[in-house]
Amino acid sequence: MSKLLIVGTVAFDAIETPFGKTDKILGGAATYIGLSASNFKIDSCIVSVVGEDFPAEDLEMLKSKNIDISGIEVVKDGKTFFWKGKYHNDLNSRDTLVTELNVLANFKPIVPDHFKDADVVMLGNLHPSVQLSVIEQMEKKPQLIVLDTMNFWMDNTWDELIEVLSKVDVVTINDEEARQLSDEYSLVKAAQKILQMGPSYVVIKKGEHGAMLFDKDNIFFAPALPLEEVFDPTGAGDTFAGGFSGYLANTGDISFSNMKNAIIYGSNLASFCVEKFGTERMTTLTKDDMQERLGQFRKLTQFEIEIP
Amino acid sequence: MSKLLIVGTVAFDAIETPFGKTDKILGGAATYIGLSASNFKIDSCIVSVVGEDFPAEDLEMLKSKNIDISGIEVVKDGKTFFWKGKYHNDLNSRDTLVTELNVLANFKPIVPDHFKDADVVMLGNLHPSVQLSVIEQMEKKPQLIVLDTMNFWMDNTWDELIEVLSKVDVVTINDEEARQLSDEYSLVKAAQKILQMGPSYVVIKKGEHGAMLFDKDNIFFAPALPLEEVFDPTGAGDTFAGGFSGYLANTGDISFSNMKNAIIYGSNLASFCVEKFGTERMTTLTKDDMQERLGQFRKLTQFEIEIP
Repeated sequence: MSKLLIVGTVAFDAIETPFGKTDKILGGAATYIGLSASNFKIDSCIVSVVGEDFPAEDLEMLKSKNIDISGIEVVKDGKTFFWKGKYHNDLNSRDTLVTELNVLANFKPIVPDHFKDADVVMLGNLHPSVQLSVIEQMEKKPQLIVLDTMNFWMDNTWDELIEVLSKVDVVTINDEEARQLSDEYSLVKAAQKILQMGPSYVVIKKGEHGAMLFDKDNIFFAPALPLEEVFDPTGAGDTFAGGFSGYLANTGDISFSNMKNAIIYGSNLASFCVEKFGTERMTTLTKDDMQERLGQFRKLTQFEIEIP
Repeated sequence: MSKLLIVGTVAFDAIETPFGKTDKILGGAATYIGLSASNFKIDSCIVSVVGEDFPAEDLEMLKSKNIDISGIEVVKDGKTFFWKGKYHNDLNSRDTLVTELNVLANFKPIVPDHFKDADVVMLGNLHPSVQLSVIEQMEKKPQLIVLDTMNFWMDNTWDELIEVLSKVDVVTINDEEARQLSDEYSLVKAAQKILQMGPSYVVIKKGEHGAMLFDKDNIFFAPALPLEEVFDPTGAGDTFAGGFSGYLANTGDISFSNMKNAIIYGSNLASFCVEKFGTERMTTLTKDDMQERLGQFRKLTQFEIEIP
């Protein structure tokens, strides 16, 4: 089976939305990526760090999803990364109320030997130097390296970000960040500029407005599934990335036309993530749920017009 | 040939965008609708009003596109409706600088006898009582009545708007207006509430984020074509409506699956409109341009995943 290496945070989140609030619950980019990718027949491994306060049952839950957790370091006497946020009424924006880096402050990822030949590497949003150190540990050039990043690193670690960008195949980024990174307002122009920084593919995530895939010659667009209610957007972007990278690891085909399918699967899985608080919906998701929703995506976007 | 009756403004616009500005040029909802619909083999007729200051060559241009202008009243000594606006840098919002209603203030549309049996009626954005008076003049129940409206009428003529809504088959409206009309934030819920007000179909226009079609049981989504440069968004919504109604008049098929095609053609034509100032691009557009872009829409949105 293909191997997917996932690097990112495993964390606690406390979330407030117009529909309710939670105490500290399981969160973190690698958690969402791993749960989402676990819907494909692949071997995956999370590299991350948690504190001694991290519940054993959460690690067990990840293991039960066939995720290798030998790369999750547990720091003795350490405390797990914690984020607390509150969403505004439209759920499109949020305020960060608390960020406690804790053990993440000194995170030096160590890739387990048996994943140094991973086929696909999914680098969750982290300091670009940390992302780079993972790439340098790989003993075999991966078929595909996917990088997620955010505006914070553009503001604070520009040079390091540019360096790691030059070493990856796909970057996933949201629309505002794509504009910031490229200094172009048009997303078409922004993507073309970012492609010149190294990646062969750019994925621009637009939240409720869908996602776009660009290479030098092609553009593909997938909408977000229109939902009656979005309950909690936390983790939707990471769930998208997990579906995207998991599908590509599973199929081993990195052509543009198969990447389109990966975008659809990413959007498919993200549409479940937002239905409940935190990871709740992702832990109960079945293959049937996913296949049924694929049919909905088809109905939503496919048309047949004969060109006369 | 099928008959399309178009009711709306024929006007002067003065436009300022980050890319330049114009003096008074040809504009108005019915103008854009008519030019867009003229790309289909149909008989169309515009019902509108202009002043004596309106250039004969603009009327001739409409005629040359096979648009019947016998329903455009020219008011002696009257002045044509004039709108002046300035777009912000992102082109997603604009300020209205001048609105001179002029002859539009007393507009009483008179449907020419030979279009009282039109197959499709496209009611551009106007006072709902004016829209209603057109419906009442029809001698044969049209196969389809499409209504465009805006927040101004929700704020000022709610009861009249609700009345005309109950008498049409399709309403086109933007996302913020759909939320205002329904008092629901979720567009899925908003559309369902609006469907209960009378129309069998709701089209929600989201500008650069595409357009959605709803009936009681189905949703379809079409993106806007990603463009390197949007030059002037004026008239894009009306051009969309013209492509939508023109395609439906031409095909005579008002099933959901053919309405999907109409949404694609509307989006297709709107993507040309924004490439130049005002109506400029629409007057030079060829069938080949339109068919080529249909191929681009296909590449942008169509995918093939086998459901295992």
